[in-house]
Amino acid sequence: MDKILLGHGSGGILMHRLIEEIVAPMFNLTDFNDSAIIGLNSNERLAYTTDSYVVSPLFFPGGNIGDLAINGTINDLAVMGAEPICLTVGLILEEGLPIETLKTVLQSMSEAARVAGVKVVAGDTKVVDKGKCDGMYINTSGIGVIKDAIDIGVHKIESGDKVITSGMIGNHGIAVMSKRHGLVFEPPVETDSAPLNLLTREILSYHAHIKMMRDPTRGGIATTLKEIALQSGHDIEIDEERLPIPQGVVGACELLGLDPLYVANEGILVAIVSDVKAEDVLSKMRANPLGKDAQIIGEVKGKVVERKPKVVLNTLIGGKRIIDMLTGEQLTRIC
Amino acid sequence: MDKILLGHGSGGILMHRLIEEIVAPMFNLTDFNDSAIIGLNSNERLAYTTDSYVVSPLFFPGGNIGDLAINGTINDLAVMGAEPICLTVGLILEEGLPIETLKTVLQSMSEAARVAGVKVVAGDTKVVDKGKCDGMYINTSGIGVIKDAIDIGVHKIESGDKVITSGMIGNHGIAVMSKRHGLVFEPPVETDSAPLNLLTREILSYHAHIKMMRDPTRGGIATTLKEIALQSGHDIEIDEERLPIPQGVVGACELLGLDPLYVANEGILVAIVSDVKAEDVLSKMRANPLGKDAQIIGEVKGKVVERKPKVVLNTLIGGKRIIDMLTGEQLTRIC
Repeated sequence: MDKILLGHGSGGILMHRLIEEIVAPMFNLTDFNDSAIIGLNSNERLAYTTDSYVVSPLFFPGGNIGDLAINGTINDLAVMGAEPICLTVGLILEEGLPIETLKTVLQSMSEAARVAGVKVVAGDTKVVDKGKCDGMYINTSGIGVIKDAIDIGVHKIESGDKVITSGMIGNHGIAVMSKRHGLVFEPPVETDSAPLNLLTREILSYHAHIKMMRDPTRGGIATTLKEIALQSGHDIEIDEERLPIPQGVVGACELLGLDPLYVANEGILVAIVSDVKAEDVLSKMRANPLGKDAQIIGEVKGKVVERKPKVVLNTLIGGKRIIDMLTGEQLTRIC
Repeated sequence: MDKILLGHGSGGILMHRLIEEIVAPMFNLTDFNDSAIIGLNSNERLAYTTDSYVVSPLFFPGGNIGDLAINGTINDLAVMGAEPICLTVGLILEEGLPIETLKTVLQSMSEAARVAGVKVVAGDTKVVDKGKCDGMYINTSGIGVIKDAIDIGVHKIESGDKVITSGMIGNHGIAVMSKRHGLVFEPPVETDSAPLNLLTREILSYHAHIKMMRDPTRGGIATTLKEIALQSGHDIEIDEERLPIPQGVVGACELLGLDPLYVANEGILVAIVSDVKAEDVLSKMRANPLGKDAQIIGEVKGKVVERKPKVVLNTLIGGKRIIDMLTGEQLTRIC
């Protein structure tokens, strides 16, 4: 068995062998029912999410589609204030995919899940004809538990709240683009893909002051801030001089004609935090490896009624630039 | 907007418009967070599952990839003894897919979820380049609640238990194959795709006597029975004369050289039921439209230790045939 065959998706012996010999051992799955059974301890609420990953190429500096698919779904739960507990994995494999490639990706998934402390509990494998996929696509869904006391959400946002990013922006998108185009930047740019639950569980000690969190993936930090503005009804102002953008990303964006504000991230979050505790949350973030480059980058302004809320960037040269959502397709198949 | 563009997957304005105008209204989604929040009432256990759907063609007699993706995941939960409560939907769309096609599929998903009484609570949309998909692939994951009293599973299987199929076998696979090859059978064969929770919730009034349930999808009833035999350690014997196979499926299988035992089903279940209550469960099934063609098709035999458990078919002409799992690829991309 060195390549994926159509028969690996047919439900019979080949598929059983693939799952028993390659997939299940990676995730320590011993039970081959289609569903997992999860016991819960209390009346805590669940957060529940799904994401498909179609990133091209499958491997890029610092990661691959596998760890991305684990971390990405963990992060969707973490920014809801949930502690992720388990994931499902749905594989769509292209006929002819080298088994070695599949193993490498599954190994990354297994390792990412271990680091995050989250268990893969159920899965599914389909195979499509050669040319009907791009190597492999992965769907992960995830369940997390939200502690009773935690109540974060866009409704809590107030004028004066601070906007914090937990780390440098633009790394993931540029890492993927560099690999896709065969470019090498100096200093090298690697994906920031990481499990944010290891960061959120710490800063949630300030949960009464954390208004909301979001992970700025596709569409970048610009689109995320615009979403927050639209949903909260508040204008948001950010300062260009405070944006933590790595040198490599700056150079790559100039070369490729990209705006780092719209480049996808996979290991940072944006938090809206009360003015009074913003510095405390910032310190807490910086004490964590995943938050060491955290910055306060701006502020929530007044509630607007007569018009749509705006995101404004105060530029380095003293101007103001309106930040809108990404239009069209700056970066495709980035996750 | 009449075709899917790569930009519809980029996370920006195009994607927001697609989701707000087309996807969200279908599922009455008003909250655009990446995760859904689910409140639970007690300490009940959860069943949790995922499935990707890559069926080709997207439309086939009696259904399409959309209702299939809803019913299939509901059924994985239902046969665990769970009442499905919510689903997530992950769409992978091919650049150039007509928006009308997407709408038709989403409409089918919405209607299937409504019929089953299950809510779609979170979703994700990705777009891949033309030629990197086959119109669309859909992943659904699902959560169901298992009542405290219910304890079904392979460990409860005993010698003497009866094997019941809730309906006719082979319809789904043949419906897809007929469309794929441009064949019409007489009588016509349509998919049996249906939400089995509407059936399982009724027969679970006999839960103490229902040892386990499974939905025989890919690999067909043969593969499912072989899995049950292997997991339980018991031989299983079924009688060919008792197998409910529609006339159209019989004819199609002869023409195409297929064995109906290996053809996928999407709206029936196999239940292993105690001898003493098998007739009662059968009656209960038959009183339900989804179980009207239910049959006792065989029996669980003794536990085996020295060799691997077997599934044996008593043939119409008085012979015995060993039934193994599907080898290779009788039917590909059937779900």
